[in-house]
Amino acid sequence: MATFVFFSVNKTARTTARRCLGSRLLNGLTRAGESRSPLSSTNSPALTLLPGPRWFSRGSSVRFMSHGTAGRAAAGRTRRGVLALSGAAAVTAAAAVAGLIANANHFQRAEMATRVSQAVEEKELEGDILERCRDFMSPPVTDIGVLQEKKGEMRTRMEMLIMETQAEFCKALQEVDGGTFKVDRWQRKEGGGGISCVMQDGKVFEKAGVNVSVVFGHLTEEAAKQMRSRGKVLKGKDGKLPFCAMGVSSVIHPKNPHIPTVHFNYRYFEIEEEGGSKQWWFGGGTDLTPIYINEEDAFLFHNTLKEACDKHHPQYYPDFKKWCDRYFYIRHRGETRGIGGIFFDDLDTPSQEEAFSFVKSCARTVVPCYLPIVYKRLNASFTDEEKDWQQVRRGRYVEFNLVYDRGVKFGLATPGSRIESILMSLPLTARWEYMHEPAKGTREADVLEVLRNPKEWV
Amino acid sequence: MATFVFFSVNKTARTTARRCLGSRLLNGLTRAGESRSPLSSTNSPALTLLPGPRWFSRGSSVRFMSHGTAGRAAAGRTRRGVLALSGAAAVTAAAAVAGLIANANHFQRAEMATRVSQAVEEKELEGDILERCRDFMSPPVTDIGVLQEKKGEMRTRMEMLIMETQAEFCKALQEVDGGTFKVDRWQRKEGGGGISCVMQDGKVFEKAGVNVSVVFGHLTEEAAKQMRSRGKVLKGKDGKLPFCAMGVSSVIHPKNPHIPTVHFNYRYFEIEEEGGSKQWWFGGGTDLTPIYINEEDAFLFHNTLKEACDKHHPQYYPDFKKWCDRYFYIRHRGETRGIGGIFFDDLDTPSQEEAFSFVKSCARTVVPCYLPIVYKRLNASFTDEEKDWQQVRRGRYVEFNLVYDRGVKFGLATPGSRIESILMSLPLTARWEYMHEPAKGTREADVLEVLRNPKEWV
Repeated sequence: MATFVFFSVNKTARTTARRCLGSRLLNGLTRAGESRSPLSSTNSPALTLLPGPRWFSRGSSVRFMSHGTAGRAAAGRTRRGVLALSGAAAVTAAAAVAGLIANANHFQRAEMATRVSQAVEEKELEGDILERCRDFMSPPVTDIGVLQEKKGEMRTRMEMLIMETQAEFCKALQEVDGGTFKVDRWQRKEGGGGISCVMQDGKVFEKAGVNVSVVFGHLTEEAAKQMRSRGKVLKGKDGKLPFCAMGVSSVIHPKNPHIPTVHFNYRYFEIEEEGGSKQWWFGGGTDLTPIYINEEDAFLFHNTLKEACDKHHPQYYPDFKKWCDRYFYIRHRGETRGIGGIFFDDLDTPSQEEAFSFVKSCARTVVPCYLPIVYKRLNASFTDEEKDWQQVRRGRYVEFNLVYDRGVKFGLATPGSRIESILMSLPLTARWEYMHEPAKGTREADVLEVLRNPKEWV
Repeated sequence: MATFVFFSVNKTARTTARRCLGSRLLNGLTRAGESRSPLSSTNSPALTLLPGPRWFSRGSSVRFMSHGTAGRAAAGRTRRGVLALSGAAAVTAAAAVAGLIANANHFQRAEMATRVSQAVEEKELEGDILERCRDFMSPPVTDIGVLQEKKGEMRTRMEMLIMETQAEFCKALQEVDGGTFKVDRWQRKEGGGGISCVMQDGKVFEKAGVNVSVVFGHLTEEAAKQMRSRGKVLKGKDGKLPFCAMGVSSVIHPKNPHIPTVHFNYRYFEIEEEGGSKQWWFGGGTDLTPIYINEEDAFLFHNTLKEACDKHHPQYYPDFKKWCDRYFYIRHRGETRGIGGIFFDDLDTPSQEEAFSFVKSCARTVVPCYLPIVYKRLNASFTDEEKDWQQVRRGRYVEFNLVYDRGVKFGLATPGSRIESILMSLPLTARWEYMHEPAKGTREADVLEVLRNPKEWV
């Protein structure tokens, strides 16, 4: 893996930084767009790598990497012309290091001095296929030769993005946990396959699953019917509709009830119609399920998503936030699964390039949305009662996933699905207590209040 | 509660009996058709009551109460003329006591000498409404005055049966656990209500729920459509279809992984059509979900059900056993939920009287199907690994209940349902391990083998 070592830090600076960030983070910091494998040969105590702009959000309580104006400048933009402007949000790693070291005990105020253009970042991130594949948790699903050959196609670019997202997130989680993901490559008889990464019963994470799948074949009649019911006009050749679907999805259940559960999923769908023309769309979202409400964490999470959305369209965050609250709703309980985030589907505007750019921004927020919260709550102590409440909330998580989640339902009903990958989203442990209702005025009752009446966090 | 004390036993006889039956059973034995409340005033150490024919099965390894020929005599009967013959299966309590005391250490061979006719038993069991209600866990859902007034109607007879079944089962479980059921009466705004009895985190049972519901109103269009899709021709008056549905259902999750989980449900449905004519049918079943396969327990359970079925029709057991294996099937896992039992629906032949008589026989097997197994395994020691395997199987139980169970799905989708009563079937705790597959040759692998290839137990 290509890691860039900028400098070594002395013990005092490292100790101070660790106090603020959690002991594993500093050793795990990498240059922009990368996270280091715990197995990497650069794992020397004298060497420290650096988080990039994708790691930490602006405008949050842990915004030690932030550029104060970028978020605000982006917020007022219209949907068109996003690409031309969004480079303003990019920051270099070196500047962040300067801030980190100069103000090791003032992270929240440190700001960065240098920006690189979006174009440079794009080039860097969509560079040589083979080199990029070296950082993945496994070789991609599609043959590397095919990816190189079809480098410019959306299928390839999206597969590279989801593989990268998987690797970045897994490595960030390994850093904080100390454990290692079990990596399973699997093939789908009908076409395609996937890579499932699962870490179970770790120090920090009870169960962490990050799954990539790239599947193709012909739409079943049932699936085509479902898509038509969503308003899609599909004309197959001889009734056949070749499709390709790919995505990265993840659910992380930590042990400590003060660290929330997170879920994200980013996906791309392509259908080939009669005459060879293609219909395509993107979908996805990231949402948080805290066991106890922490306003600061909720703000950080939502604000990070809002900033990613605002770079592309001012309506994205408010619309997709509402969609998320509606989607992750446990109807029979009258409560949402968690405090939401964003959710969208059937995104095919304004152009494929811009939709992809938006999805890329979202995928790159998964680490900065979540890891700062994990580090902040890492050493929080908890009682048996708090653990019990976590288990009850896990039960609700299971209820949502098995009763309502469209992906799970579709997966379980589809012959040839890899069940273990679909159900890796379920927690390691859960609990159902009859007539469990927290007493008024407790922190547990506060959670229910929020889940019954979703609120605005930003 | 009217309990009949036949005699007192000396300490030695009691001690021997206890060794075989588990310490709580002997104190809890009652006369035929009754189970004693742990709060009963007859709870003196010198007094012992007696189990009736409904408590223990013939032909099983714990058939200390059995009459050797009754089961075989019943097996060859045809569907017609059941009522005239089935009295042969009835036994008196006194004869059983004689066997129990004379052969306190030879329970398995003790047989009974006396039979009473079905007619006498029927009269006894369908006697005075008010007196019978005194034994219930709560007053019935329907006003007692109305029940007395409509004593001969099937609705009343079925409501009395389900209330009786609830009370009998709850009291038998309380006896073995030492805990007490929490009893909740609830009303349904749209008509009717129910009584939910739940015992949670007891000594023996992690979660035990026994629910009665009696609901009525008008069929929703969705429900009518569903019923029509099942082949029912329904003609409403002005499009309205008044209905009444009632049933008793229960799921018991013990703590000890060597005691299996049991589920039963017996229900009655009535729809009033244009002109006032009624369509009615019964449904139900009892099934066992062991964590480890024990052939002896499986035989006892299935044989008890088979004998109850055989009294009514020789095809009932084989047909309803197959139906059960088909119904309790976790398709996405390719395995059944447990080792089955019986399951039937839409039963409206050969006559209402005979169908009710069959359901009554089934309802009366719930204690003798299960309690002997509980007592046998009560003090079995278990390892952490065995407990873990139980938790994994609990996860599968949750999967079935939330993904496939028609009752749960219908309940969750029906506005005004009492969610806590529907979901009391979920275990207190469950576990999902990624890629859990027991090693070949282990007892866990043996379980999966049986769940993947349902077998004949009788």
